[in-house]
Amino acid sequence: MMMDNWKKLSGATVLGLFAGGLTLAGATMAQDLTGPLVLKDQGSFFVGGALEQTDAMTGTPGGFLGYSNSDGIKVDQMYVQFQVPKGSARNIPIVMIHGCCLSAKTWEDTPDGRMGWAEYFVRNHHAVYLPDQSARARSGFDATTINEVRLGLKPVSALPNIFTFGRQSAWDLFRFGPAYPTPWPDEQFPVEALSDFGNQVIPDLNATLPTPNPTYENLANVAIQAGGAVVVGHSESGFFPEEAALTNSSGIKGIISIEGQCPTLNPGQIQTLAKIPTLVMFGDHLTGSTISGTFWPTNLAGCQTFVHQLKSAGGKAKLVQLPQIGLHGNSHMLMQDRNNLQIADYILDWISQNVSQQHGKPMVGKNRDAPD
Amino acid sequence: MMMDNWKKLSGATVLGLFAGGLTLAGATMAQDLTGPLVLKDQGSFFVGGALEQTDAMTGTPGGFLGYSNSDGIKVDQMYVQFQVPKGSARNIPIVMIHGCCLSAKTWEDTPDGRMGWAEYFVRNHHAVYLPDQSARARSGFDATTINEVRLGLKPVSALPNIFTFGRQSAWDLFRFGPAYPTPWPDEQFPVEALSDFGNQVIPDLNATLPTPNPTYENLANVAIQAGGAVVVGHSESGFFPEEAALTNSSGIKGIISIEGQCPTLNPGQIQTLAKIPTLVMFGDHLTGSTISGTFWPTNLAGCQTFVHQLKSAGGKAKLVQLPQIGLHGNSHMLMQDRNNLQIADYILDWISQNVSQQHGKPMVGKNRDAPD
Repeated sequence: MMMDNWKKLSGATVLGLFAGGLTLAGATMAQDLTGPLVLKDQGSFFVGGALEQTDAMTGTPGGFLGYSNSDGIKVDQMYVQFQVPKGSARNIPIVMIHGCCLSAKTWEDTPDGRMGWAEYFVRNHHAVYLPDQSARARSGFDATTINEVRLGLKPVSALPNIFTFGRQSAWDLFRFGPAYPTPWPDEQFPVEALSDFGNQVIPDLNATLPTPNPTYENLANVAIQAGGAVVVGHSESGFFPEEAALTNSSGIKGIISIEGQCPTLNPGQIQTLAKIPTLVMFGDHLTGSTISGTFWPTNLAGCQTFVHQLKSAGGKAKLVQLPQIGLHGNSHMLMQDRNNLQIADYILDWISQNVSQQHGKPMVGKNRDAPD
Repeated sequence: MMMDNWKKLSGATVLGLFAGGLTLAGATMAQDLTGPLVLKDQGSFFVGGALEQTDAMTGTPGGFLGYSNSDGIKVDQMYVQFQVPKGSARNIPIVMIHGCCLSAKTWEDTPDGRMGWAEYFVRNHHAVYLPDQSARARSGFDATTINEVRLGLKPVSALPNIFTFGRQSAWDLFRFGPAYPTPWPDEQFPVEALSDFGNQVIPDLNATLPTPNPTYENLANVAIQAGGAVVVGHSESGFFPEEAALTNSSGIKGIISIEGQCPTLNPGQIQTLAKIPTLVMFGDHLTGSTISGTFWPTNLAGCQTFVHQLKSAGGKAKLVQLPQIGLHGNSHMLMQDRNNLQIADYILDWISQNVSQQHGKPMVGKNRDAPD
């Protein structure tokens, strides 16, 4: 199967679908995947956050050990890790935001241990920023309501619906195969590592968040702190880059929406987003399975309408289904699929051709800032 | 104040307290803090985890969209990030595990943006492994019980006590000062960045975990995957390295317990732990404030007993209170204090003098393994 996939990719190259980009990216790949990684800087920081005055969040009425909580506890903040490679001054930074029931792990090593997009983009000389959504993973969440129910201060009906998914639903919705546990014949997701993928799946606490989701504004601020960036969303967060730009577009120089849903916008919103180069991407096997066979065509149609509207408003927008460019068998988790780096090459090429690489000085640590 | 601290450190150096270690570490520090970071490898992986058959964890009785959950959802797994620097073959890997209501962020950039221990140890040529405790941050947690209460399948009394802390309790318990918001005159914690520290504080879901805490066994497995490692615990996890070694000591070559609690152990347990070089560390101002002024002396006394027992059993064990070595004003979060890298130098020196640097090949990515 690996050979077949390699042949398909070679075919795509011969067809010139990656003209310009793949040669460079391919050369980088061969050279850099096994060489040392040289970083100008790395670190982590937070954006956003509000202070909540809550005794319940400490789990103890009257305050833990009698301490007052009157000066508040932080909620809605967003944790961000970043790496700035040597040579990144000439390339636009990238922000990658993960989807439902996942964390920034999405973009790191794949379930079967191959290199993920985060390091690959760094090795291709882009600074990369990896947030955990507000209310997820290292960003924490607001436990006040759950504790208030425990303490009898609120009814059971106030509890948030904490969502996650099992491997059978993932198999269908993430398009690993037509029916669990059978994979598609050309499936690109490393299904042998399904158990490892299951480790990445964590509870989604977005039901605890206020409206609008603070991740939108936080994402806009990460892009500003990065000195201007391309923002990449996936699945639940597929449209978060657009939502961030509708909050504050000043730092968002390009948008990549992968396998998400595109809602109906008003003309003013379309006008704002049409100023930002936008790539919308879907994988393979959108039809043919049970529930997901109606879910994905609906999402695709919504995004086709959105891209059409951007173009009509003068925008530089493109929707690509991977089979159209010779890549077959890609799942919903295409950044972890066997051909994930070839898809990354396509995106790197699209960015270099459509997004200005000009940007400000990205955030670096206080006491380290190696020469570029 | 910075000058005073520098004088104190110089004094300590003259006294020979850092004999051998500080010269090298100091030289490394001057050279490497602002230079590029060269990594042989980096990545993330999971250890442990159990499959739970739960409809409630998907938030929907009967299963989300009717999908079966009969093949289970992962719980109790532990997420680990790692970096392996060039030149690390000669140094023992380090595993750093965070405390209550925190994540691996503890060891990254400080709240005021200085370099944390994780990168500093990497720059001192140690591979570093950073887990999020099971049931915390990117390791996820088991939301089944919360959802079962929401669905009326369990009583309200089954809800876990989700614990976190506010800035007033932190001020006293973490010893930022005698009474909120006044700092100690020689306080080393960057209190001007208290709000940024608050971003790191996230809900502790350990009440959702089974007994024994799966983090113990998971930590032991990380040390094995690292090829043998020194395990560093802090606060809630101060004694986790010992708990891990009592589960499986084969990968644990050294233990550093910082600002934790040392429980009473039986002779067999002491015998097991006495085989592992152990450093127990506390900061300053253990007495003098309201609640924490009784809390910390109790913890100190428990750990003094523990270290005495290790020594009596032939162990290489040491308890150090930082003022004893000329470092004053250190808080509970001493890895984030203004003199955090000087404390790191002391630890690096202790490791080099007390722990064998021999270790197996640490875990690296599948398709990248640069020469050392």
